[in-house]
Amino acid sequence: MLRARHINAAVVSARRAVSSVAAAYYPSEPVAPNLVTESVPGPKSIEINDKLGKVFDNRASYFATDYYNSLGNYISDADGNQLLDVYCQISSIALGYNNPELFKTAQSKEMASALINRPALACFPLSDYAEILQQGILAAAPPGQNKVWTALSGSCANETAYKAAFMYQAAKKRGSMDFTDEELTSVMNNRAPGSPERVILSFDKGFHGRLFGSLSTTRSKAIHKLDIPAFNWPKAPFPALKYPLEEFVNENAEEEERCLIEFEKIVKSYPPDTIAAIIVEPVQSEGGDNHASATFFQGLRDLTLKHEILMIVDEVQTGVGASGKFWAHEHWNLTTPPDMVTFSKKFQAAGFYFSNPELQPNQPYRQFNTWCGDPSKALIARTIYQEVTKHNLVEKTAATGDYLYGKLKELFGKYGNKVFNLRGENFGTFIAWDCEGPSKRNELLAKMRAAGVNIGGCGDHSIRLRPTLVFENKHADLLIEALETSLKSL
Amino acid sequence: MLRARHINAAVVSARRAVSSVAAAYYPSEPVAPNLVTESVPGPKSIEINDKLGKVFDNRASYFATDYYNSLGNYISDADGNQLLDVYCQISSIALGYNNPELFKTAQSKEMASALINRPALACFPLSDYAEILQQGILAAAPPGQNKVWTALSGSCANETAYKAAFMYQAAKKRGSMDFTDEELTSVMNNRAPGSPERVILSFDKGFHGRLFGSLSTTRSKAIHKLDIPAFNWPKAPFPALKYPLEEFVNENAEEEERCLIEFEKIVKSYPPDTIAAIIVEPVQSEGGDNHASATFFQGLRDLTLKHEILMIVDEVQTGVGASGKFWAHEHWNLTTPPDMVTFSKKFQAAGFYFSNPELQPNQPYRQFNTWCGDPSKALIARTIYQEVTKHNLVEKTAATGDYLYGKLKELFGKYGNKVFNLRGENFGTFIAWDCEGPSKRNELLAKMRAAGVNIGGCGDHSIRLRPTLVFENKHADLLIEALETSLKSL
Repeated sequence: MLRARHINAAVVSARRAVSSVAAAYYPSEPVAPNLVTESVPGPKSIEINDKLGKVFDNRASYFATDYYNSLGNYISDADGNQLLDVYCQISSIALGYNNPELFKTAQSKEMASALINRPALACFPLSDYAEILQQGILAAAPPGQNKVWTALSGSCANETAYKAAFMYQAAKKRGSMDFTDEELTSVMNNRAPGSPERVILSFDKGFHGRLFGSLSTTRSKAIHKLDIPAFNWPKAPFPALKYPLEEFVNENAEEEERCLIEFEKIVKSYPPDTIAAIIVEPVQSEGGDNHASATFFQGLRDLTLKHEILMIVDEVQTGVGASGKFWAHEHWNLTTPPDMVTFSKKFQAAGFYFSNPELQPNQPYRQFNTWCGDPSKALIARTIYQEVTKHNLVEKTAATGDYLYGKLKELFGKYGNKVFNLRGENFGTFIAWDCEGPSKRNELLAKMRAAGVNIGGCGDHSIRLRPTLVFENKHADLLIEALETSLKSL
Repeated sequence: MLRARHINAAVVSARRAVSSVAAAYYPSEPVAPNLVTESVPGPKSIEINDKLGKVFDNRASYFATDYYNSLGNYISDADGNQLLDVYCQISSIALGYNNPELFKTAQSKEMASALINRPALACFPLSDYAEILQQGILAAAPPGQNKVWTALSGSCANETAYKAAFMYQAAKKRGSMDFTDEELTSVMNNRAPGSPERVILSFDKGFHGRLFGSLSTTRSKAIHKLDIPAFNWPKAPFPALKYPLEEFVNENAEEEERCLIEFEKIVKSYPPDTIAAIIVEPVQSEGGDNHASATFFQGLRDLTLKHEILMIVDEVQTGVGASGKFWAHEHWNLTTPPDMVTFSKKFQAAGFYFSNPELQPNQPYRQFNTWCGDPSKALIARTIYQEVTKHNLVEKTAATGDYLYGKLKELFGKYGNKVFNLRGENFGTFIAWDCEGPSKRNELLAKMRAAGVNIGGCGDHSIRLRPTLVFENKHADLLIEALETSLKSL
């Protein structure tokens, strides 16, 4: 019962701008989604997933994916369906599928060597690692940052940043003293003073990863945390803003002020130097795409400086251009940069930026592990950075985001009872909205997939857009059309 | 002041066996170490490291490495020195540098796609992921294991195994009940019952990684743990055996019995079901290459079964052939396989094996993260497994290990006041010994490097051998010669 459904192909092909980066990268990119099975996942996807499920936990699978035939903004499945992708491997595809420049990088001599001679980077660094970093990850560093520690995932980027914060605060307190015998002994039993009682403070609804330290700071959903032991670390409230922002200016300012006051109250409830750092996302992504204003983040930065607490900004999901700035926290115009900024996802490489040399512990082998990152990912990150710069993809994403936001606002005027709290104005394509509840949200996600758009939820009842940086107005039009069709029948 | 020092090249070239796998893979492999600078690191290495040190913590660096000119069992540095490598990126190079079969894999269409279209594996699995796993990682699974969860490093392999253990024990206790409201609420505050007080038990001197959960089980050295908050998890003693084993049969049996008794005492001091799992290495590697007998591990397995505690075997360093078995715990001949076995390093891919389907939590998105592994590493692991099998590299490593162990035993007969406690008989090339103390150990490591051998320490005063699986008798001869030269002048 297969049939071809070319969705609006005729309508949209006319809109194709020849000067677009997507067209230059992907001359054969589909002009519209193309569904060939009654539903997604189709029969081949289901068969493949059944087989995979016998050896690997794939119960979260959307469909078995044909990456060879995915192209640009389109993801293909095992059945031959081609969907416009605005989820992009949970916000992780920067330049589109099968990007030709990344392909060159993948086929390079440097990549082959990095893959087959994988180094223990801190012991046997490759001779050109400094150049690879300086031309890529470090060239992209946020304002005020000039050093990096590389890791393998968002979770371990955050956890190594936490370790840096804990060692920094301990060193500050210890001064020039050496480790005491009591510290050296107690630490082997996981006890204070060697394993101190310090904490990382995070925010209600924040998500920072799923290993034991990062999970202790994650406050997104119970299902992420249940049954896993956690550190008794504190959380502070994150502002719950009301939308549209222009209608709730005073209320939102009060809400943010309330959160800052509460934050300082919590800080003061701990002995000095107990809170080593706070960690905060520019937009709480897994937690429901919760934004706060630059004023709030400036206030937070001021309080961390006042109380000598380090500030870690988690840009794992927000980083690398999608917000219309390379780093989302650049929207805040902080007078003092954050102490550390963590990254992963769209950069493939993971880790944290910093500038204060005292965030390097006093001895080697303290911030250390076998890999200390992965040069194959640093090579990918370099190409991503260079392509983003060459093609002004951050600026273009800002413009596409403005176009898309305007169209969505118009559409939501018509369907405001079904979709509301549109978020992400002047924030690139990093856009989200709420639905009436979890089941309505999931229904809308399913309808969007049936209309040929691969899209993801977040929080309990929100939908988030996470397209590539080569998502353009023509793709935005397709998204809007699919959304209108879906909303009509919701 | 550079001069060429071809070390024993004439002597050893005659020994080169044409049928060797190393010779087949690497027809141009050096016949001996070749040092061209007065000392290692040479001036170029130092210059490169100074530059790298400005942006990346490389204080643990041995030398800047020229991976393009490294070959087989030889590692090259930026100055053109070629060292016989028996450290191998902290035990992580399985088939030698620039292996031609791995190069083919690195240049394949599959690899390019895996690198540039990096999937969120649990949501959008590649269509052929089951095959890639089944032909590689899973084909290599230890006896009794038929499922895998993939991760990115040894630390996160262990931590995801801990999470599986915690969720398993909670589910066992909860039975068919649903999560309670109290669990759902308390977990968001990192409090019991949602974040339970359960623990992982590890062993004195064990090493299991450096993230917050894994570091809480790591008991190798204070410097690995200082200033980092830890869970109040227990440790049990690990046998301290005396060597040579044949001279201390009764004493060692008593020591192992003492440790088992102490282990059970600790277990009984906890309320039932509080200890979710134990984790243990077949050989405590970072902690000083501490071995225990099959009898000890069988005893441990019996006690875990008796007390319904899961047993996790950490094969991150011991796995993939070096011990003369593919998995070191195969030396134990357990009647009931371990519940989980973790891996990383030589396989590049990381994760844990298991067979009990109840180690998959009751809902999706509990054992979950963005990447859930990395198909580019799974492709590398597949080639490594296939080459190991094709060339009988495990059996060959067992034979080379026996040869090397015999030569070392002979040598240690002459220098028994300087090097002793030789360990690793009938254990492949996974061999180690002790020196008189930390400074003598470090002196010997430096002398070995000056003799053209790249070699690593472990524990406080031990030296460990971690060569590739294509390390052969001819390489063993070179190692022995360099060691004798170094010992003479120690």
